[in-house]
Amino acid sequence: MNKPSIPKGTRDFLPAQMARRNHIFDTIKAGFKKYGFLPIETPAMEKLSTLTGKYGEEGDQLIFKILNRGEKLSSSIRNIPANWTSQGQIEHLLCEQALRYDLTVPFARFVVQHQNDIAFPFKRYQIQTVWRADRPQKGRYREFYQCDADIIGTDSLLCEIELIQLMDEVLDNLGINDFTIKMNNRKVLSGIVEITGESDKIVEIMVAIDKLDKIGESGVIKELGDRGVSNEAVEKIKPLFGIVGSNEELLAKMRIMLVDSPIGLKGLEELTFVIDQINKLSLVKAKLSIDLTLARGLNYYTGAIFEVKANGVDIGSICGGGRYDDLTGIFGLKDLSGVGVSFGADRIYDVLNELDLFGAAVEETTQVLFINFGNSEAMHCLGLLKELRAAGINAELYPTDAKLKKQMNYAHVKGVRFAVMVGTNEIESGIIRVKDMATGDQRDTSIQALINMLNK
Amino acid sequence: MNKPSIPKGTRDFLPAQMARRNHIFDTIKAGFKKYGFLPIETPAMEKLSTLTGKYGEEGDQLIFKILNRGEKLSSSIRNIPANWTSQGQIEHLLCEQALRYDLTVPFARFVVQHQNDIAFPFKRYQIQTVWRADRPQKGRYREFYQCDADIIGTDSLLCEIELIQLMDEVLDNLGINDFTIKMNNRKVLSGIVEITGESDKIVEIMVAIDKLDKIGESGVIKELGDRGVSNEAVEKIKPLFGIVGSNEELLAKMRIMLVDSPIGLKGLEELTFVIDQINKLSLVKAKLSIDLTLARGLNYYTGAIFEVKANGVDIGSICGGGRYDDLTGIFGLKDLSGVGVSFGADRIYDVLNELDLFGAAVEETTQVLFINFGNSEAMHCLGLLKELRAAGINAELYPTDAKLKKQMNYAHVKGVRFAVMVGTNEIESGIIRVKDMATGDQRDTSIQALINMLNK
Repeated sequence: MNKPSIPKGTRDFLPAQMARRNHIFDTIKAGFKKYGFLPIETPAMEKLSTLTGKYGEEGDQLIFKILNRGEKLSSSIRNIPANWTSQGQIEHLLCEQALRYDLTVPFARFVVQHQNDIAFPFKRYQIQTVWRADRPQKGRYREFYQCDADIIGTDSLLCEIELIQLMDEVLDNLGINDFTIKMNNRKVLSGIVEITGESDKIVEIMVAIDKLDKIGESGVIKELGDRGVSNEAVEKIKPLFGIVGSNEELLAKMRIMLVDSPIGLKGLEELTFVIDQINKLSLVKAKLSIDLTLARGLNYYTGAIFEVKANGVDIGSICGGGRYDDLTGIFGLKDLSGVGVSFGADRIYDVLNELDLFGAAVEETTQVLFINFGNSEAMHCLGLLKELRAAGINAELYPTDAKLKKQMNYAHVKGVRFAVMVGTNEIESGIIRVKDMATGDQRDTSIQALINMLNK
Repeated sequence: MNKPSIPKGTRDFLPAQMARRNHIFDTIKAGFKKYGFLPIETPAMEKLSTLTGKYGEEGDQLIFKILNRGEKLSSSIRNIPANWTSQGQIEHLLCEQALRYDLTVPFARFVVQHQNDIAFPFKRYQIQTVWRADRPQKGRYREFYQCDADIIGTDSLLCEIELIQLMDEVLDNLGINDFTIKMNNRKVLSGIVEITGESDKIVEIMVAIDKLDKIGESGVIKELGDRGVSNEAVEKIKPLFGIVGSNEELLAKMRIMLVDSPIGLKGLEELTFVIDQINKLSLVKAKLSIDLTLARGLNYYTGAIFEVKANGVDIGSICGGGRYDDLTGIFGLKDLSGVGVSFGADRIYDVLNELDLFGAAVEETTQVLFINFGNSEAMHCLGLLKELRAAGINAELYPTDAKLKKQMNYAHVKGVRFAVMVGTNEIESGIIRVKDMATGDQRDTSIQALINMLNK
């Protein structure tokens, strides 16, 4: 028999990892609630037609599809054309359902489907697994959680302010104290492209500009050319590289560069409003920084774009989001503007790990283990256990009268703080012997005294 | 465009449902922890080979399979034999991964795979989704949560006692105060079949006996004959139908009936021990009742069998479990005995609903909504909001200066208790006007007084 294993890109989580992961999820969830978001859940399986065409051609290929069953499968297999060429064609023949690829498209579907049952503006959070058939690599999995909060049904910029506060507060609560919230605005990007006169090349231009950090100015210029952007347009983009400085300086310089682009100026105005209010009221602890090359979510973002990076660690963005003016349009509900952020729990895990910030984040484990000295002592312990549990204390009895050393080791491995020993003498005298596993101290006391101490 | 929808047998959960579901999950989770279980998670996707052959032929057909991708898919489609006949054959050709069907087989795989990283006896809980391609019907879904707790690595009957206490405590904490914990033991069932001399017919005999409630004694006898059980064997089974009475009476009568079956007597001894200890120490509130026809999990249970039914509602079992002596054997790790229980969250939901036991179980929603009277007032509110949130209060600001009625309605629908109104006058005087949405009372106060009241 082969050693059992799991599909590549997936993971098992042991209790110690669960404790750390739950610490992250609980902190994010508490933040979501504090800012007025309420939870929803959607099915892991969506209709394939709900998902396809929403993530671009490459994304479509990364969706996990679920094989049809029964007569449907038999007939579709008989109907596979001999001259089939496209994998997508085959997949649509054999599959009608698929695993969700993100939480955003299912949320859009949810909003349209339940539009009469929810009150707008609708603030929802959702913490669920998503699946992507990406090539697995360090920090990239095929099955992972997303933690999303969105406000849909208003274009108020107060939402942007609140989401920035939310990201700041959650990351601060997780103990990450050096991070940068980067901001951009899709309208500014549109403005930049507009003044080049090549608005049809926005994706090519943005993908190239987005690499400025990695390949430098000359690299970006070369890539622009390679991607078919004209020399004239490149010349008009070049000044962008020289625009550095504080947020205020950037905004001032951009107002000059985009003076002929109404949409660009609108984007600058939005950026200015959000940053001004946050600064005026000292709403965040993090560094808030405009990054004109930030171009994530280009397919659907229409306003603000956010991204958060922890400083001092070589791990990509841990948080991101933006505004989309027409997400539900794909499902037939027009003119519903939304804005949201998503926390990358796996990357946050890596950051906390690398910066040694988990501290004593442990799953609420057993607080008290009763040592088992044999059947009659064990029965006595069941009664004491009942008292502890009634007082809200997590406690258990070792199931067999194994050697003391083995039982103590069990307590140690499980992180149990107190081991209670009750032998014949103790039963007679009504006392219990309590060993503090952390200090090694042992003392005789009563069950009530132990309860009082633990519930202090 | 079609109205968007989700696959049949799956569900969306809106915030109000989430609140109720989370109430159930949180209560179960707290119970698991109180009894010393620690959480694990396994991937939704398992290798198909891990799952097939574990649930019987019918179960195999109900597993959702995930279509292979890329070159693997292309070549397998080319290799479909022209004369294929079995759907299973096709599925194994086209799929290498599948969605988990329950949490038990993945747990067995987990234990074998991580046997060197966990300390035995290993007490784990797991609350995750499972998928089954069953025909959807009332109360039966294709995607649903299971909530399992298992102890693996010991055959101590203390575990049975603890699991019965756990079920009792969790259901009691959920407010269900009239339920019956039914118990049986697979060894007793083996004994009954042994004395018939037709041990090879154990499944047929048990499936028939299990229907006693529904089809009565004559129905069972007919079904036994239909299933090929000999008349002699049926005669030996008949006395079973006459065995009624208290647990003690049942046990005494069974000891006579099974006097020649060592395995049967062993089963009775186990039942007696568990019931005696629980009664002696008054460990449970529920009615504990031996049910000799209880035969769930016949494929893998080897000792105790549990099932819980809420009395007074026509909903199937809400909890069940049992002992399995060789679950990990299928993955090459022999002689590891385990015992576990599983809570049926969906059925528990239906029971709580039907008995009107959810009470005020609401998701922690926004406690305070700031009414938005326009830009400058809103900015002032952002500062006040920051104070509330710093004090741990869930609060939000309505994102636009919509009509007061609309904003109040938003607070009402969302279940927000307090609406805070801060207009120009209030800003100048430093007071806030607070409306209690529950009573309609309005009063002027300070932000600090509001904080004090909410954190009282």
